[in-house]
Amino acid sequence: MNKIEHIGIAVKDLAAAGRIYEKLLNTSVYKTEEVRGEAVKTAFLQSGPNKIELLEATSSNSVINQFIEKRGEGLHHIAFDVDDIEAEMVRLKAEGFILLSDQPKTGADNKLVCFLHPKSTNGVLIELCQEKR
Amino acid sequence: MNKIEHIGIAVKDLAAAGRIYEKLLNTSVYKTEEVRGEAVKTAFLQSGPNKIELLEATSSNSVINQFIEKRGEGLHHIAFDVDDIEAEMVRLKAEGFILLSDQPKTGADNKLVCFLHPKSTNGVLIELCQEKR
Repeated sequence: MNKIEHIGIAVKDLAAAGRIYEKLLNTSVYKTEEVRGEAVKTAFLQSGPNKIELLEATSSNSVINQFIEKRGEGLHHIAFDVDDIEAEMVRLKAEGFILLSDQPKTGADNKLVCFLHPKSTNGVLIELCQEKR
Repeated sequence: MNKIEHIGIAVKDLAAAGRIYEKLLNTSVYKTEEVRGEAVKTAFLQSGPNKIELLEATSSNSVINQFIEKRGEGLHHIAFDVDDIEAEMVRLKAEGFILLSDQPKTGADNKLVCFLHPKSTNGVLIELCQEKR
């Protein structure tokens, strides 16, 4: 766990939320990207050494849509940068954390990702992410 | 907005959550602190350039208790480090953000803090914090 890579925020309208976070952080959205496997569109803003990732659902089946229907817009996950995602998955599983996939998946921003179940982390959805090499 | 200073996570049992996050982040809780004005006990872990702040209510009136009763444990707020909290409060108010106090308040970890209302930030409770000088 090198550092927080990004914070994911579930929003209803990516463009409108982008404008709000541009004002808040006094910086510009530097990238938008669609992740079809997760049925989301994303927008990234830099905040010092970390990123803010805004997420809008592109389908009613998207986990982001389900999250917003249940809880409203808001903080969705914390992603931690790791050097070796497979090694970290083995370590965390041995520590009792519940992984949501057996293998890393392809995420936004050229990453391999794996999520941990919030019930093993005090209600927080945790993402591990490793830059694809 | 220099960077994310910390991520606040609402938990029911600070000691138990501390052990979980020590395993997750592979580091130790380096400080615990009670903030009487907010009726919370806090525990801090370092994550690269940022901190994770675990928060447990010390009273049923605490905002942390109210949050957990409504939504369960989980991500509570993002705190951004600022150099001059009063100047940033003026800037953000002019941009249309809703401040939850007119003046900075004393927070944990030797900080002056001010929160923004989640309804102006897509459901995310944002904290500004400046090191006390």
